Amino acid sequence: MTIDRTKLRWNGWGWAERAEDSEDNDGLWRWLAEELGMGALMSTPALDLGNVDIPDPRLPRRLIELLEQTVGSGQVRADRYERAFHARGKSYFDLLHLRNGMLDTVPDVVVYPETALQVLEVLAFALEHSLSVVPFGGGTSVVGGVTAVAADGHQGVISLDMTRMNRVRAIDSRAMQAVAEAGIHGPDLERQLQQRGYTLGHHPQSFEFSTLGGWIAARGAGQQSNRYGKAEDWLVSAKLVTPRGYWTTECHPASAAGPDLNQMVAGSEGRFGVITEAVVKIHPVPEATDYRGFLFRNFESGMEAVRAVSQSGVPVAMLRLSDADETRYFQEFARRRHPSTLSRLTAERAKQAYLRARKFDGPACLLLTGAEGAKRQVSWAVGEIGRIVRQHDGMPVGRSAGKRWYAGRFEAPYLRDVMLDHGVGVDTVETATRWSNIPHLHRVLRETLAKAIAESAPAPGARGIVLGHISHTYRDGASLYFTFIF
Amino acid sequence: MTIDRTKLRWNGWGWAERAEDSEDNDGLWRWLAEELGMGALMSTPALDLGNVDIPDPRLPRRLIELLEQTVGSGQVRADRYERAFHARGKSYFDLLHLRNGMLDTVPDVVVYPETALQVLEVLAFALEHSLSVVPFGGGTSVVGGVTAVAADGHQGVISLDMTRMNRVRAIDSRAMQAVAEAGIHGPDLERQLQQRGYTLGHHPQSFEFSTLGGWIAARGAGQQSNRYGKAEDWLVSAKLVTPRGYWTTECHPASAAGPDLNQMVAGSEGRFGVITEAVVKIHPVPEATDYRGFLFRNFESGMEAVRAVSQSGVPVAMLRLSDADETRYFQEFARRRHPSTLSRLTAERAKQAYLRARKFDGPACLLLTGAEGAKRQVSWAVGEIGRIVRQHDGMPVGRSAGKRWYAGRFEAPYLRDVMLDHGVGVDTVETATRWSNIPHLHRVLRETLAKAIAESAPAPGARGIVLGHISHTYRDGASLYFTFIF
Repeated sequence: MTIDRTKLRWNGWGWAERAEDSEDNDGLWRWLAEELGMGALMSTPALDLGNVDIPDPRLPRRLIELLEQTVGSGQVRADRYERAFHARGKSYFDLLHLRNGMLDTVPDVVVYPETALQVLEVLAFALEHSLSVVPFGGGTSVVGGVTAVAADGHQGVISLDMTRMNRVRAIDSRAMQAVAEAGIHGPDLERQLQQRGYTLGHHPQSFEFSTLGGWIAARGAGQQSNRYGKAEDWLVSAKLVTPRGYWTTECHPASAAGPDLNQMVAGSEGRFGVITEAVVKIHPVPEATDYRGFLFRNFESGMEAVRAVSQSGVPVAMLRLSDADETRYFQEFARRRHPSTLSRLTAERAKQAYLRARKFDGPACLLLTGAEGAKRQVSWAVGEIGRIVRQHDGMPVGRSAGKRWYAGRFEAPYLRDVMLDHGVGVDTVETATRWSNIPHLHRVLRETLAKAIAESAPAPGARGIVLGHISHTYRDGASLYFTFIF
Repeated sequence: MTIDRTKLRWNGWGWAERAEDSEDNDGLWRWLAEELGMGALMSTPALDLGNVDIPDPRLPRRLIELLEQTVGSGQVRADRYERAFHARGKSYFDLLHLRNGMLDTVPDVVVYPETALQVLEVLAFALEHSLSVVPFGGGTSVVGGVTAVAADGHQGVISLDMTRMNRVRAIDSRAMQAVAEAGIHGPDLERQLQQRGYTLGHHPQSFEFSTLGGWIAARGAGQQSNRYGKAEDWLVSAKLVTPRGYWTTECHPASAAGPDLNQMVAGSEGRFGVITEAVVKIHPVPEATDYRGFLFRNFESGMEAVRAVSQSGVPVAMLRLSDADETRYFQEFARRRHPSTLSRLTAERAKQAYLRARKFDGPACLLLTGAEGAKRQVSWAVGEIGRIVRQHDGMPVGRSAGKRWYAGRFEAPYLRDVMLDHGVGVDTVETATRWSNIPHLHRVLRETLAKAIAESAPAPGARGIVLGHISHTYRDGASLYFTFIF
């Protein structure tokens, strides 16, 4: 089932009808202003689409009609909303442009192919008429992957919206492989797989709105990548349409014969062709899941625990270690966004007393661990993780922290829009490095981001908020993810 | 420490001084003749190098001298032994050529570089003088990867023997990575790593004589690939020398930015440049190892057990399932090669009685399982493997089968030479496919190989021996390895 594009924000995240802000949040914004060293936040609403200038399509009407004859008139769109929606992805940089009506990269026409043959026809059409083609899945790219820019010498841009190619075509329950079209959205794919007892288990933060093809093209990682793998790990084979015809990559569990071209497709951002279908590795829907929290007195000891678990071979699904600033910030943010009832306040006070008693009254770092799979395995893994973490002086704080994170795991991009409404910028950077370099990278990136924000501060004394966490772990290193607010 | 080339068989496997055959084996050969439907085996010894014609180098003496001036005279060899040794790899096809003195692919000169700069200089020299360069590690390739053939229009071939580039340069004990030069042999690499408490864990059958660079260039799998990964899994980064200069591939635990060019280097067989150094993932030397055997009544039920273990996520190091013919053949072969003493005979009879009592008196399939790692993990894994295997009607037969396999795990290539001395050919093919296709592939390959051998039989009634096993397993499939004797 395709998501109805008209129900989504063309210039922000997710469903248009979702109201993120309310008067209840006044305390939240006052607190955030204080954290940023500002007297008060601003009001910086986005422009309505009606008030935005959109350049006319560069393609003559004749060509658009020809395109309609090629793929069917219901599959070609050139209205304002469709063109604006397909102009850019969802990075902070993109949102700045869209919210301010800077539609400098609008596609001339949007085509919704329904078959690989139609994709081939569109590419042939584009070749013939010197048009650029930008494959578009969920449009959630934050690296410019869907920006509708024409190549040099091209007279226009076709945005190729893949979301009508959204069928699960086959499941091989012995090989644990599924075949699905690339335009299928995350929830639709998981619903169809889970109905039959399977899961791909790929849950990036964009999960609700991104597509299978986009995950592959972006070489993405889901939040449980330790268990389910990054896109390049679960990708078995891809079908692409290229300007020179169809291309199906090799499809075997392993090979010793030559380079693995699947690894050229993963991360290709549409460069070698349009991904139309993929064979992917699937898992049984986990019998058991276990998410829980541990506190560490500092980032280094937490990192050592995370490294030890990652290198132990214990089957973990997720290890997410926040630094002290992120731990504190998210606690405060959540507390002010959802002001506590009396009973929650009492529970909070009891927890603080407990932490003081354990001498955890300074800044602490929160580690969230996740295990998923067969009951026996989850049970063993949870025991082993706990044992290793305690060896590194981690203090168990139970499942509630895990549950809270799990419930809100797709929420952050929504918050970005509301912050932007208040003149607050928020962006992220992420990079993976080997374990021995993590402490250095963590320190240098924090300092560099804070300094860059301070240097362009809008008022004397204004400062940024820089939050870091280890988001994905590997045997040899981990990914450091920074959120910075300014 | 480099292996002294002159102590190796130029036209066969391993150390020249090792005597594989003796009069004790007469019974073995009579049995093998019977199995092959032959009255007796032949005597087909290999030619001595002294009796073999080797074409003169195509390079003028002047060019060889120039090469000596470039890299140092001790590093350039053009004598008969060196040229013959570097003519080909060690496939059955190669051995047929070498044993019969068909030296149609002899390099004109062998160069032993000691630095990446010297490799660069050799490539520049080769470009200038229209020479082909064939990188050569252990020379154990069975796919023609080191055959010294000149490209069209080239006047000769340089075999670039990498084995003097054999240093372990660095170990990062936190990231669990080692940096080593590509020409290092397996035992030398493992000795240096294990002295410091680490292992790469890559043990292909060629381990004793193959090199790190060759493992990468051939995208190889070690026998414990479930735990340590194939070459493309443990390769973090490679340094290459190409005709256009140095090339170091990206070096990070994971990335979402573009294709992974390490995956172009793995399996490249020297095509994109000469691999001179690699960063690889290492592990602690395992605290515990456990190898043991199980019997199945047929290949299909064994395969289902192997699939279940592979897909369970239980940390296994090896799963090796022989079909009924292979199980029987190796038992008989070992029994006749090492005739039983009285006490072993008694033990054997007791075992047979036990099997009959358990109604395992028909053809059975042997599964060998291996677990390696931390004691706690091995102990848990062994329990889980045993549980899953018994659920699939596998019968435990203890550790002795595992120990026997482990002790002889690098022996098979030696046996090939002795068989060739008796006019018996032996070759192997291997391919990986998804689980749902394994039974079909097993049946069809057995039939096809048997038929092909029968069709070219040297005597009426002569037949081949076709032995299959599952050698490497993955979540979605496995590798089927066939040995055929004719």
